[in-house]
Amino acid sequence: MAKNITPREKDYPQWYQDVIRAGELADQAPVKGCMVIRPTGFALWESIQQDLDRRFKETGHVNAYFPLLIPESFMTKEAEHVEGFAPECAVVTHGGGKELEEPLMIRPTSETIIGHMYSKWLNSYRDLPILVNQWANVMRWEMRTRLFLRTSEFLWQEGHTAHETAEEGQEETLQMLAVYKAFAEEYLAIPVLTGRKTEQEKFPGAVATWCIEGFMQDGKALQMGTSHNLGQNFAKAFEIKYAGRDNTEQYAWTTSWGVSTRLIGALIMVHSDDDGLVLPPRMAPQKAAVVPLFKNDEEKARVMPHAEKALQILRDRLGRLAVIEDTRTDARPADRFFHWAQKGVPCRLEIGPRDADKGSVCLVTRHDRKKQFLSLEELDAQIEQILEDMQQALFDQALARREENTVSVDSWEDFQAAIKQGKWIRAHWDGTTETELKIKEATKATIRCIPDGMEPEEGKCVFSGQPSKGRVVFALSY
Amino acid sequence: MAKNITPREKDYPQWYQDVIRAGELADQAPVKGCMVIRPTGFALWESIQQDLDRRFKETGHVNAYFPLLIPESFMTKEAEHVEGFAPECAVVTHGGGKELEEPLMIRPTSETIIGHMYSKWLNSYRDLPILVNQWANVMRWEMRTRLFLRTSEFLWQEGHTAHETAEEGQEETLQMLAVYKAFAEEYLAIPVLTGRKTEQEKFPGAVATWCIEGFMQDGKALQMGTSHNLGQNFAKAFEIKYAGRDNTEQYAWTTSWGVSTRLIGALIMVHSDDDGLVLPPRMAPQKAAVVPLFKNDEEKARVMPHAEKALQILRDRLGRLAVIEDTRTDARPADRFFHWAQKGVPCRLEIGPRDADKGSVCLVTRHDRKKQFLSLEELDAQIEQILEDMQQALFDQALARREENTVSVDSWEDFQAAIKQGKWIRAHWDGTTETELKIKEATKATIRCIPDGMEPEEGKCVFSGQPSKGRVVFALSY
Repeated sequence: MAKNITPREKDYPQWYQDVIRAGELADQAPVKGCMVIRPTGFALWESIQQDLDRRFKETGHVNAYFPLLIPESFMTKEAEHVEGFAPECAVVTHGGGKELEEPLMIRPTSETIIGHMYSKWLNSYRDLPILVNQWANVMRWEMRTRLFLRTSEFLWQEGHTAHETAEEGQEETLQMLAVYKAFAEEYLAIPVLTGRKTEQEKFPGAVATWCIEGFMQDGKALQMGTSHNLGQNFAKAFEIKYAGRDNTEQYAWTTSWGVSTRLIGALIMVHSDDDGLVLPPRMAPQKAAVVPLFKNDEEKARVMPHAEKALQILRDRLGRLAVIEDTRTDARPADRFFHWAQKGVPCRLEIGPRDADKGSVCLVTRHDRKKQFLSLEELDAQIEQILEDMQQALFDQALARREENTVSVDSWEDFQAAIKQGKWIRAHWDGTTETELKIKEATKATIRCIPDGMEPEEGKCVFSGQPSKGRVVFALSY
Repeated sequence: MAKNITPREKDYPQWYQDVIRAGELADQAPVKGCMVIRPTGFALWESIQQDLDRRFKETGHVNAYFPLLIPESFMTKEAEHVEGFAPECAVVTHGGGKELEEPLMIRPTSETIIGHMYSKWLNSYRDLPILVNQWANVMRWEMRTRLFLRTSEFLWQEGHTAHETAEEGQEETLQMLAVYKAFAEEYLAIPVLTGRKTEQEKFPGAVATWCIEGFMQDGKALQMGTSHNLGQNFAKAFEIKYAGRDNTEQYAWTTSWGVSTRLIGALIMVHSDDDGLVLPPRMAPQKAAVVPLFKNDEEKARVMPHAEKALQILRDRLGRLAVIEDTRTDARPADRFFHWAQKGVPCRLEIGPRDADKGSVCLVTRHDRKKQFLSLEELDAQIEQILEDMQQALFDQALARREENTVSVDSWEDFQAAIKQGKWIRAHWDGTTETELKIKEATKATIRCIPDGMEPEEGKCVFSGQPSKGRVVFALSY
């Protein structure tokens, strides 16, 4: 057991912080609520960006960059939007040594400024669709912060699209939800539930919000990404208009969708263990660490040529920068092993004098701590499959955990008990915000989503007893 | 000639703006001095990022992310630094609906906040060197702005490193200067002069600043990147200390280095012409546009199968996303040609019915507007060399232009005349800030750098007549 990491059983929030500290993923910034993403943590974000960006481009999107600062007057043009975001804004009042005529908000999200620009660029239906994404920092002033999960400044991507018809807007909204789901499951090895948010939980200014929700090891849900159908709300507020096919003036239909550095929090809380970070191999920036072990020059001369061969095999298979060689001589072997374990490196190769003499290596897989002894030929032939098996094992484990902890509940008593046990609950709901808020007040549980693909089922609301047409998913959440 | 672009001869600043507008590279933001980088412009930044990031990683650097907001008190810890940057800062005074206890500055550069974090992370000489880079937005309040060249918010990368010895700090400073030079010349096809800045022109807080300077078509110099040896100035201001090899407390030696979206301005002003943007093929995100030409279904049936073959050849050679197919039927051929020319796409393939019948394509190279007729086999065999030749031709042209317009001058009269003619001037200087400022006052020319690799040469200052030990380079600049 790692001495610098509190076990999950003992104190889950402390475990989360310890994993981040031990893995050198992030640090508190001197400005309250802000974080520093350290190189090991930032490499995770780069890996996420690379895979997602490819998926965005394959679905026809291009990147752009819009300004950090938004005039205060923009924020007030869409009524729900300003109500949702204005209280969280950081405000610039001075620039270049002078007080500004109009205060500027640091973007909490960019629908307003992007809507303003689209209204300038859009002339004809021929200019549609506009399919743009932005990778950026945003700021939402937070009082209770937690590294990666909730910080005042965070990094994210925000897609903003404009379409000719309501149908195309809805298709885009669901397409990007599907992109997020595929990305989360295939790349992060995190199974996600998809569905629609309730009126109460949707994005301020959206017609409807879809989401992907992940099951964390403490039973809480984490909203990992959202895709919003904005209807014509922002088009009307920002005059995003064009000459239609019949030459009449039309408002565009817009969408927005985003994921953030919060995904790193999800990775930690879904896969990691009491030894620290565990990463699915596909997304791990460093996939293997080669650790040669020797006590003196004689041993070094036996070990190093063999270790270099193993290193070369791995670099050829996995990429040069994906394999680390740890040749430190000023740290004990156990500390060197722990170092790479805590950074979540999927495979560790331990190579001592006896391994070298036998022509083998000891390969330790991070997620199950299992050792296997392989010849160099076997290493070469099997390493990719070993990593793919690990990817699958992590996904299977996360899915099994979610399934075991998701229950259908039909009484209010069972509901309260299940929430206390950290379960996700499928329950009937009468469809009113009033009931939703009363349940939240009583249990802190929220409706995570009205799940996609759930069979219609007549029933009675678990709280009010009123008629319900289907189950929704309740859980505690971050 | 493009009707929507003012010729360089007529109005150079207007030409620059017209190229940006016609190429849809960027737009003014509603907040004064800020810009929107449109998809075509942002693709250039992504291309720059990709190549530079590879070079940074190959030289051992990793990426991280530090907060946008810096406490005001941090800015004041290094005396020269605060004097240089405080007047340009945007200040956040309110957050979450309340006035803040301490105002926060939006980073104009991150030496202070990064120095603070390094002081927390650094314990022993074993932790050195720290080799970190950040891709980020920064803000320097500007009154007179110009898209890409000078805007209040811009995108950049800033490397920040810490070292054990002064020698290692200096080596890093020069290594990154060499990385910038190689990148500018090999990738952007822009020859750059490297050298050291004078005391007057160096970075506020640095011991010494090195730079790469490019020659623009109007004769002005553009500082395209800088690499600063910070000595122990920031280490002392921010307590970046460690236990040395002899166990005594030591201050680290630090460096910082950066390039920004200004490089896009350089690309425009070095390579573009009166038809709009011209891009060197290696950095061009889209390397070729295939433009099938037909007037009716019969012609379409002849042209399209052939055009699709040409498209496939190009995509196989250059990458799927690097080749565009323009199948618009609602625009005239000439407008379609201009469209891709103004976006700087290096090659255009015009394929009409007669080309299809002959099995050939008409390839037009953007930089020299030359047409060549190639069979599909020739296209396949030659396209990569055609693009490489274009890359070289653009570099050679830019180098020849700089050489033709760089003169050695030994009298004050010749100096004034040469500046008016838009020349770069090699002249003797007495080494004093006083003379430097008087020359600037009289001519607006500044010392761009004390060039690397210039032979020592005894002489007399072109302005004061005092003794000088070598020539420096003067020019007007952006």
